[in-house]
Amino acid sequence: MASDWATFGADLHLELRGTRLRAGLMDALREAVRSGRLAPGTRLPSSRSLAADLGLARNTVADAYAELVAEGWLTARQGSGTRVARRTAPRPPAAAAPPPPSAGSVRRRPATPVHNLNSGTPDLASFPRADWLKAYRRALTDAPNEAFGYGDPRGRPELRTALAEYLARARGVHARPERIVICAGFVHGLMLIGQVLRARGVRDVAVESYGLDLHDGLLRRAGLGTPVLGFDERGTRTGELAGLDGCGAVLMTAAHQYPLGGALPPDRRAEVVDWARASGGLVLEDDYDGEFRYDRRSVGALQGLDPERVAYLGTASKSLAPGLRLAWMVLPGDLAVEVAETKGAVGWSSSTPDQLAFAEFLRSGAYDRHVRAMRLRYRRRRDQLVAAVAAHSPETRVSGIAAGLHAVLALPPGTEQATLRAAAWRGLAVQGVNAFRRPTVPLTLDGLVVGYATPPDSGWQGALGALCGVLP
Amino acid sequence: MASDWATFGADLHLELRGTRLRAGLMDALREAVRSGRLAPGTRLPSSRSLAADLGLARNTVADAYAELVAEGWLTARQGSGTRVARRTAPRPPAAAAPPPPSAGSVRRRPATPVHNLNSGTPDLASFPRADWLKAYRRALTDAPNEAFGYGDPRGRPELRTALAEYLARARGVHARPERIVICAGFVHGLMLIGQVLRARGVRDVAVESYGLDLHDGLLRRAGLGTPVLGFDERGTRTGELAGLDGCGAVLMTAAHQYPLGGALPPDRRAEVVDWARASGGLVLEDDYDGEFRYDRRSVGALQGLDPERVAYLGTASKSLAPGLRLAWMVLPGDLAVEVAETKGAVGWSSSTPDQLAFAEFLRSGAYDRHVRAMRLRYRRRRDQLVAAVAAHSPETRVSGIAAGLHAVLALPPGTEQATLRAAAWRGLAVQGVNAFRRPTVPLTLDGLVVGYATPPDSGWQGALGALCGVLP
Repeated sequence: MASDWATFGADLHLELRGTRLRAGLMDALREAVRSGRLAPGTRLPSSRSLAADLGLARNTVADAYAELVAEGWLTARQGSGTRVARRTAPRPPAAAAPPPPSAGSVRRRPATPVHNLNSGTPDLASFPRADWLKAYRRALTDAPNEAFGYGDPRGRPELRTALAEYLARARGVHARPERIVICAGFVHGLMLIGQVLRARGVRDVAVESYGLDLHDGLLRRAGLGTPVLGFDERGTRTGELAGLDGCGAVLMTAAHQYPLGGALPPDRRAEVVDWARASGGLVLEDDYDGEFRYDRRSVGALQGLDPERVAYLGTASKSLAPGLRLAWMVLPGDLAVEVAETKGAVGWSSSTPDQLAFAEFLRSGAYDRHVRAMRLRYRRRRDQLVAAVAAHSPETRVSGIAAGLHAVLALPPGTEQATLRAAAWRGLAVQGVNAFRRPTVPLTLDGLVVGYATPPDSGWQGALGALCGVLP
Repeated sequence: MASDWATFGADLHLELRGTRLRAGLMDALREAVRSGRLAPGTRLPSSRSLAADLGLARNTVADAYAELVAEGWLTARQGSGTRVARRTAPRPPAAAAPPPPSAGSVRRRPATPVHNLNSGTPDLASFPRADWLKAYRRALTDAPNEAFGYGDPRGRPELRTALAEYLARARGVHARPERIVICAGFVHGLMLIGQVLRARGVRDVAVESYGLDLHDGLLRRAGLGTPVLGFDERGTRTGELAGLDGCGAVLMTAAHQYPLGGALPPDRRAEVVDWARASGGLVLEDDYDGEFRYDRRSVGALQGLDPERVAYLGTASKSLAPGLRLAWMVLPGDLAVEVAETKGAVGWSSSTPDQLAFAEFLRSGAYDRHVRAMRLRYRRRRDQLVAAVAAHSPETRVSGIAAGLHAVLALPPGTEQATLRAAAWRGLAVQGVNAFRRPTVPLTLDGLVVGYATPPDSGWQGALGALCGVLP
């Protein structure tokens, strides 16, 4: 059987049986359509190029195409070329039917969500397509040829230089291009750092009481333990770090706790850095939405306090779009070398045209403009959220509103699950605070995490109304 | 110390000391420049926007800028805004000097390479910038908003649909969109499959006698053993698979052995698939340059023989550019589900605008045109290589020339290392066959692996001359 598959044609893979060329070509095409190898709608090469590939006269191919069009196997339309007809193709024999939708509960089901207030995604409708395209065009035009090759595992120097400038200016980060490593999202960066820490012999990385399972799971997948720091009304209890033997690092959302929303108070910022200095440990600073603060006082990156003891991780996922897969780490010198080596050994990176486009986007001021515009827009939504909650449910406390893309609405004790069920029935997707609580942390808070950046403008008022409808 | 860093300003991170606002702002800016936090050349926000952020009168900021320009800290130029002056910034105090260049051998050193015939990279100067930009523009314009979000870990459906069509047509692959998983390069795909196989309990993945250490190392990093299949004049000895207990998969470059260049003969193609069927094993088909064949007879993907037992891996790294980080896997149904889950758990993917652009590039026929043009170009180079070698060194046998972007030049036994040293002295970067030999495989071949696609057109004749100069 195998040898039958050595066939003619470089682009079009067909079995030509026999020597009657036109008939053979027609048979092979029919068979390819019948078996599903050529899917309905597939565009065939022009008769000229197929003829060149197969070493046939152009007329032989053109005649075969014409006959198959007449037979209904193919279609030919001005401007769209010759294609496999839509109605002639059965499913290929090897094709299993797609899995049936999960039967699930056949009892009355919650409405399919129509309003989305899940946190973690910016307003995708506001992606600055025109400005991004402009930056991409310029970057692609100016790129040196070598930019299309495999390149430096740390990422393009143009982008690392632009980021160093931006992060110093906007986030108080001590950044030099050679200490920056570009990665394909925060999670990619955390995975690389986790692997390096494990290889260095670190046993545990402490995490906060509330956070994303995904991050915790990633560290454990790298072979690290994840002891949990306690939480009180002032935030994460950084003093507990001193009591954790074998803990080599701590993962923190210092500027804006995720999801509870507070900034770590100054004495605890000092405490975590002092711990790292005294113990030789490392602080992993997840600065996921540092660009978005709405009050006067803004909190600089923890990294500015001690660039040798803090690894800073930032991302374009909240400020621009997650789909770009662009994020960055600013690392202590020795860690930068090891993380770059680890990244290089597994050989992938973000697309270089995208990196160059983002460098141009930063350099040209388009990023500043976009962040500024989005800050106004999100701030307006936050104000509308606060006002709507105050009007519909005056006793509901709203917190975590000084910054970021989400707020926390406190609920009466014991009512979170019932409120989430009510939301689902109203077609509102929203998460409870306890979806982010580490399993070992006792239940002390009930609340909703409201991602007010998520809906497009057209869906915002509806989502807000659905939310108010489920509040006490 | 920490509390000092709670500062004013959302975009510009400065410590404002005291209440004399203009003087305070000037002090803070001077300090930021002096410490290196604001790098030379950094563009400052407009006085209007900084004033808004800081809650100052615009004139206060404008006056402070003007005085600092007068003092030489900043520069102001029409159209480029206010920037940190180039000459005023010392290195930040935390900045260590870059490491000195490795001392290395102080004896006479080989010339820095000026000619590059290393294999594995296409001609980057031929990247179709204009056509790619056209596809990117169209994709970005047409993209639904949700395309900018996190998305399906398998990749964009538009791209998987376009690839299914293309792969069936061009490579004889049985591809359905739901069985395709997009990845950021072959290595990323291999890593994902390796992790899934290990989790399934597979112990070993067999590899060929010659190949890339990177791939072998990646499998071992996933916890898999990598027994080596023997090699003879007909290619990889697939019959040895039957004798490998505990071997659950085999990694093959069936269409074009890397780097030796042959196609696996039909009986061995059948043998490897029969082994997979009989043992429940899996064939990992690395189809890295399947688009480039120069003779009439082209070899279809092994995957076409049994889509349930062969995982097909393809890439745009050779056909377009490695910098795009775009590759794809076509997987048996159960493996597709597990690989997508594994990819999702570590949360990253290729940029969605790039995926949409590539889908458009395929759909529009631009990919076919580019591959066709490059095939002609590479074929011409291959012919020039064969002719030059025949003229300068008639006894040197050139093999692996039916396909791909590289050829193998056989050398007299025992002369490979000396030839490579001679090449380095002439400024020619090229690799020997034995750089790809697995450590346990006995040395039986001497030769050069010549990547004739690598140089730009302007460098090709020079590289060819340097190569001929070192042949016997």
